[in-house]
Amino acid sequence: MFFASDNSFGVRDEMIEALARANHGPAMGYGGDRLTKSVERRFAEVFETEVSVFMVATGTAANALSLAAVAPPYGAVFCHEEAHIMVDECGAPEFYTGGAKLIGIAGADGKISADALKVALATLVPGNQHHVQPAAVSLTQATEVGTVYTTDEIASVCEIARSNDLAVHMDGARFANALVSGNVSPADLTWRAGVDILSFGATKNGAFAAEAIIVFSRAAADDLMYRRKRAGHLLSKSRFVAAQFGAYFADDLWLRLARHANGEAARLASAVRAIEGVRLGWPVEANEIFLIVPAGAHQALVEAGAVYHPWPGAGPAGDNAVRPGEILIRLVTSFATTDDDVERFVTALKMALKT
Amino acid sequence: MFFASDNSFGVRDEMIEALARANHGPAMGYGGDRLTKSVERRFAEVFETEVSVFMVATGTAANALSLAAVAPPYGAVFCHEEAHIMVDECGAPEFYTGGAKLIGIAGADGKISADALKVALATLVPGNQHHVQPAAVSLTQATEVGTVYTTDEIASVCEIARSNDLAVHMDGARFANALVSGNVSPADLTWRAGVDILSFGATKNGAFAAEAIIVFSRAAADDLMYRRKRAGHLLSKSRFVAAQFGAYFADDLWLRLARHANGEAARLASAVRAIEGVRLGWPVEANEIFLIVPAGAHQALVEAGAVYHPWPGAGPAGDNAVRPGEILIRLVTSFATTDDDVERFVTALKMALKT
Amino acid sequence: MFFASDNSFGVRDEMIEALARANHGPAMGYGGDRLTKSVERRFAEVFETEVSVFMVATGTAANALSLAAVAPPYGAVFCHEEAHIMVDECGAPEFYTGGAKLIGIAGADGKISADALKVALATLVPGNQHHVQPAAVSLTQATEVGTVYTTDEIASVCEIARSNDLAVHMDGARFANALVSGNVSPADLTWRAGVDILSFGATKNGAFAAEAIIVFSRAAADDLMYRRKRAGHLLSKSRFVAAQFGAYFADDLWLRLARHANGEAARLASAVRAIEGVRLGWPVEANEIFLIVPAGAHQALVEAGAVYHPWPGAGPAGDNAVRPGEILIRLVTSFATTDDDVERFVTALKMALKT
Amino acid sequence: MFFASDNSFGVRDEMIEALARANHGPAMGYGGDRLTKSVERRFAEVFETEVSVFMVATGTAANALSLAAVAPPYGAVFCHEEAHIMVDECGAPEFYTGGAKLIGIAGADGKISADALKVALATLVPGNQHHVQPAAVSLTQATEVGTVYTTDEIASVCEIARSNDLAVHMDGARFANALVSGNVSPADLTWRAGVDILSFGATKNGAFAAEAIIVFSRAAADDLMYRRKRAGHLLSKSRFVAAQFGAYFADDLWLRLARHANGEAARLASAVRAIEGVRLGWPVEANEIFLIVPAGAHQALVEAGAVYHPWPGAGPAGDNAVRPGEILIRLVTSFATTDDDVERFVTALKMALKT
Repeated sequence: MFFASDNSFGVRDEMIEALARANHGPAMGYGGDRLTKSVERRFAEVFETEVSVFMVATGTAANALSLAAVAPPYGAVFCHEEAHIMVDECGAPEFYTGGAKLIGIAGADGKISADALKVALATLVPGNQHHVQPAAVSLTQATEVGTVYTTDEIASVCEIARSNDLAVHMDGARFANALVSGNVSPADLTWRAGVDILSFGATKNGAFAAEAIIVFSRAAADDLMYRRKRAGHLLSKSRFVAAQFGAYFADDLWLRLARHANGEAARLASAVRAIEGVRLGWPVEANEIFLIVPAGAHQALVEAGAVYHPWPGAGPAGDNAVRPGEILIRLVTSFATTDDDVERFVTALKMALKT
Repeated sequence: MFFASDNSFGVRDEMIEALARANHGPAMGYGGDRLTKSVERRFAEVFETEVSVFMVATGTAANALSLAAVAPPYGAVFCHEEAHIMVDECGAPEFYTGGAKLIGIAGADGKISADALKVALATLVPGNQHHVQPAAVSLTQATEVGTVYTTDEIASVCEIARSNDLAVHMDGARFANALVSGNVSPADLTWRAGVDILSFGATKNGAFAAEAIIVFSRAAADDLMYRRKRAGHLLSKSRFVAAQFGAYFADDLWLRLARHANGEAARLASAVRAIEGVRLGWPVEANEIFLIVPAGAHQALVEAGAVYHPWPGAGPAGDNAVRPGEILIRLVTSFATTDDDVERFVTALKMALKT
Repeated sequence: MFFASDNSFGVRDEMIEALARANHGPAMGYGGDRLTKSVERRFAEVFETEVSVFMVATGTAANALSLAAVAPPYGAVFCHEEAHIMVDECGAPEFYTGGAKLIGIAGADGKISADALKVALATLVPGNQHHVQPAAVSLTQATEVGTVYTTDEIASVCEIARSNDLAVHMDGARFANALVSGNVSPADLTWRAGVDILSFGATKNGAFAAEAIIVFSRAAADDLMYRRKRAGHLLSKSRFVAAQFGAYFADDLWLRLARHANGEAARLASAVRAIEGVRLGWPVEANEIFLIVPAGAHQALVEAGAVYHPWPGAGPAGDNAVRPGEILIRLVTSFATTDDDVERFVTALKMALKT
Repeated sequence: MFFASDNSFGVRDEMIEALARANHGPAMGYGGDRLTKSVERRFAEVFETEVSVFMVATGTAANALSLAAVAPPYGAVFCHEEAHIMVDECGAPEFYTGGAKLIGIAGADGKISADALKVALATLVPGNQHHVQPAAVSLTQATEVGTVYTTDEIASVCEIARSNDLAVHMDGARFANALVSGNVSPADLTWRAGVDILSFGATKNGAFAAEAIIVFSRAAADDLMYRRKRAGHLLSKSRFVAAQFGAYFADDLWLRLARHANGEAARLASAVRAIEGVRLGWPVEANEIFLIVPAGAHQALVEAGAVYHPWPGAGPAGDNAVRPGEILIRLVTSFATTDDDVERFVTALKMALKT
């Protein structure tokens, strides 16, 4: 009954095999190896367009470098008020951009809407030297609360961004989970909808430590090369990061793993919906389930050995808000979650509710 | 005949096995796992004292974070004028410290002497608000030119540092190679000689991507926790970095690998000394050989398939300086270099000199 | 009818005379002159305690330097969501601190309450490496909306701050106006209530460009000396800034000017209260009047020659909120505002309301 | 006998009169006033071309902001190894640029030559991600040692800069002194020779605190507007800085003051050349005299009441180097230095040499 985080599940065996395979003979470091080049080509195929690819070891690095590439030190970056870049990166975006300001926007289901972005933009006057200058908007896909932006939702935010000269960044730490949630292509979900730069995550979906910044226009590419190095995110033995992406894309492993994780989340959500006394915080559209449970049941679950995190954020708004005596918990499924894990949790939850 | 860099040789099989072994069941991320804890204890044993350990993925990150922990934005960091932090990290120390100034010091054999540090210190007046303020000195061990500081040399620099309130950082990207070069303990080479903070590298000596900041006093530890995270250098699946260190220390693998690399370098140096027409740039004390060869021989070596880098730095001073028509090349040996590699290179070199 | 800003009114003649008086013979620069020393002593007298004084040319510099002295790059600074440091300094605090995060707190009358601070603190977990770390709280006195914190209000915020290891900064761009609003001493309003560091403004109250950072504990003093210089805020001919403070304190000029400005504001507020169709946005406690007027009346006022700024912030909450068809305007009085200015505005306002 | 620094002499009366004149009635702040606009036009006339003008209060701010406008955080800025930006600004350029690296170049007479720049450029490989990237070169005019670049010297450095995509910054803290030293126009000395951005100083030449960044191409202008504000260098009562420039240019006051200062320096240099036992460190081409005197004479001069600074730099090279028992001192003349000051110093020097 382990649902703490998708980065707690170790890695897929394919990843270990890929590392072993890549470990033959010498290869130039710092991205000068054959595997890195081939992964760059692979990304272009996956996204059906020319891209610049910058592999790094963490999602925080991918996000912060991406924002530094598109926002000046006096810039403003709009994002959901509970976005990872806003609350969970210890100020990495501020560090990397040289002090740009993140402006949190409230929004239902962990999303920011085009309208809400418009309202937020109105608080800053472009050209007014007293104000930080609107520079970028960042969308998290899948969101922090397990929902997924539709391509239409993305496009409408991008349209407002475009007409206000904002770059659009997507935090895709769970990009695969978002992708298989709909029936759209990587291109549809990103540059065709107007996204300029993407943090593409593989770590949460079965890799060791493999994240990539995907730039859909050449503009920021030179800049990122130097910014990555001076941030210490250019890995010397780059072939081994590339090898992970090689395995990730081979035989659609990434899509299969994400489908599995999402499927287990759907199974859990479905079971939970039928249980009286608990309810879902948000629609379950990827691999995260937010559950509102009585505090006593939470206690009992923990004692029964369930591992997950109470969720520190504000929780859902309106009728669905967390009430006194209740607690909001987050369960995350992964490539390694089994039907049995889900069933054991559901059983434990039913027991817990009786106590 | 591959001698380009010690990070070009892939990894030891023990590393892959360690990753596979660590990949069983879920584990908390971000350093909360059992393996990370055990590695921290292992470092304390290796260094015979309490230490704080911060694992990161690159040596540049280890160096820049270390310097940020000991130097304020208005600080000065003294180092050899050809140190890696000075010329090869695209300004990472300046980025991480918030703009501290690196002050390069010339010195024979890639080392800075206590006297040279004293002279450099005299150019800055502590308490003079117009000057950056002396904050730290950084030693590279083994040095960029393949030499090794003795414990006495380190201690004498540290003494000047101490009496001028400077912290002492050691860039130990090749710490193991330096260690086995002498007959001293890790403690002797660091905190007993006066070192405050160490970048401990394993990547160049057989790991995938495993570096650690070792802090010998608690002072900087809290600070580093947050600085690492906001730099994107806190790996989520931290157990897999820890696993590499586990394998590194097991059965003294690290010392065995370093001894092997140094041994091949010594073998190469010895052979070369007997060859007319070439000479060593600096004493060969670790796993790097700097060779001054006629430009024509360099050309012939490259054509014969030898892989190495011409060295961009100033070269040795005085009588041993590179003369017109000569070129300075760097050869690096590693855990994977064989006697046969060395012999083939020596043969090729002899051939090249005849052309 | 000029009420645009208190920095639009030029300077008091005493300031020009003081500059002329200070302009005799040579004097050491960069704070090494006699006048600077005497001003430092004067501040100690005014605040009845030992202080460190750092004169700078702008309030933004005073604020940003103060925050950099008390918050690390990974720190969080709490302030009112409409504070000057939050919305009107183009990200200066982020720049100076190296990327600390400002966290806006909502609060009636432009103030943050001890309770609201407590709630905001609860969103960040000290010691959690994923979160920026609570470092400081900044109070604006007088506030952005023309109200004044009582010493009790300050003390209760400081108490929460103290028990959470937060430093307390006060943005005193209008410190004199706040001071004469109550019947308290400079010491009562600051360090006796728990304030650690103060941006003390004279520019808005009749000086050319004279602001000072007042540090009530020695801790941050060394740091600030270097931070000021490297920010380009150490003026070479420092005696002329000191001369302004000399004139400012002489014969209580500063208190007399602030009383005058506040008095004109009170007179205007009083007249306005008797006029149907307009109302005050917030209590008038210093030298700013926020008025909610029909949009048509605003138009007529502007055409009649009144100069002031519509206020871009959210406006008062609750029953007093700005309604459709209304507009919130800000009027600022100064040392130079006359009774006649006020009367002419009141007359114009009455006329405007008839149109 | 006061020769400590040109910023120790107070200000010209015209400056005080200009402030008084500007102090009539209200005016919009932050550069929105009539005087600021007129000064911007005046600069365009002085330099015979369209310029963007950013007034600030200190030379350090002008330099650091200029460099931030032309160099990215991963950039390299070349300058003389004893340039003010290198040694006397407590790391301001590093702070403002976000960590760019200043690379000091040695050069006779305080100047860097085109050839020396070429050599320095060769140490960095553009496009090599491990290196900071060449971004700008900064020339000091007049230099730190009182010499003046000819327009040919400037043009030849600018040509190398242009062909290497470097921006050219000029630190003109003593621009007026350099200008009247030759017989050239402000345009000849700057943009016609290839200079992109200039720190134009008035403070050392008779103003209170008036410096301006002059941008000869529009490129950096928007950027600087925001960078200045977030650095706290946008003065609210901007009209009073503008007023100083107004007085500075009126009736060629700036040129008359500079000619006077240079003339007194020439007079002093001429007298000194005739005195046995002392010699000049460098040619006297502006308003600074560097004198090499016996240590005993220095002592006697100080006791006789002469005020000046021993010079901390390396001193002249070659035959003219400072020898044991000698000391290098700097004397600065200003608009306020009199013939009598010079004569009294010469007399005192002769006396001192006899002791």
